[in-house]
Amino acid sequence: MPDPVRPADDDARALAQSLMASARFAALGVLLDDGSPLVTRVAFGLDPQGGPVSLISGLSLHTAALGQRPACSLLVGEPEGKGDPLAHPRLSLMCRARFISRQGPEHETLAAHYLRRQPKAKLYLQLADFTFVRFAVTGAHLNGGFGKAFRLAAADLQHSGGTG
Amino acid sequence: MPDPVRPADDDARALAQSLMASARFAALGVLLDDGSPLVTRVAFGLDPQGGPVSLISGLSLHTAALGQRPACSLLVGEPEGKGDPLAHPRLSLMCRARFISRQGPEHETLAAHYLRRQPKAKLYLQLADFTFVRFAVTGAHLNGGFGKAFRLAAADLQHSGGTG
Repeated sequence: MPDPVRPADDDARALAQSLMASARFAALGVLLDDGSPLVTRVAFGLDPQGGPVSLISGLSLHTAALGQRPACSLLVGEPEGKGDPLAHPRLSLMCRARFISRQGPEHETLAAHYLRRQPKAKLYLQLADFTFVRFAVTGAHLNGGFGKAFRLAAADLQHSGGTG
Repeated sequence: MPDPVRPADDDARALAQSLMASARFAALGVLLDDGSPLVTRVAFGLDPQGGPVSLISGLSLHTAALGQRPACSLLVGEPEGKGDPLAHPRLSLMCRARFISRQGPEHETLAAHYLRRQPKAKLYLQLADFTFVRFAVTGAHLNGGFGKAFRLAAADLQHSGGTG
């Protein structure tokens, strides 16, 4: 049987980048203490380089889990309206999470960039337990709808020549 | 610091059950070969007993992963419209997956029940690689919006006295 998953092409790259650019939230998969997965909802945005970033609460289960085990996954691309939700394109990212200290220039740069697209996140940023997390992408799977599966590398998610 | 996660109450149970009853799709977290998580989108419905069920393709990464490692997680409760997506309630289920053979009465019962709410799933059922998976819930976390986190047991998700 031929591999049903295709290598990335320009259309797949453009679709994946568009799904990331338009996402305001994501499903985050983390590993619990016993090694089993937990999926929760988190905020989603991009850093100035176009990499995925979230703003998460220190009181959340996923934050505790990521602090122990940085391997995680993000799903973006939300169905809207009444059509078949499985026909809607979505992107699964495999990542490693890295927390950004609130004391430091990296936090300030991220906050300024993030608030430009999500101004209401200011509410969360004012709470002392909220921290930015950057996600280093190790691979991705794009499902462009039924029968349209693609395997992508981290480089496929970067705008070529773009500045973010 | 007090535990920010509360035990289940009647409102939390009703909200969790309502999120499950209205979901047509979910984010599924599975474990890859190296133990890291992968989150994908799957169809979502309920079996006649009110337990979570999906109809998944044998060609999908998540299906291969679940065949090897049944520990998984499902997220349901989709934001709609333009409000803060993190204010929208959602439910994270921790589960173990069990595949239902296409040859047998359990498949037939599930198919008849499932198609009543999702008639268009008939298209997928006609494809030989699609199989029902039942999810045995081992625990759940409900986030009813900012600051409203609840820990639920499998029994909290069952309609009391209901027949499904």
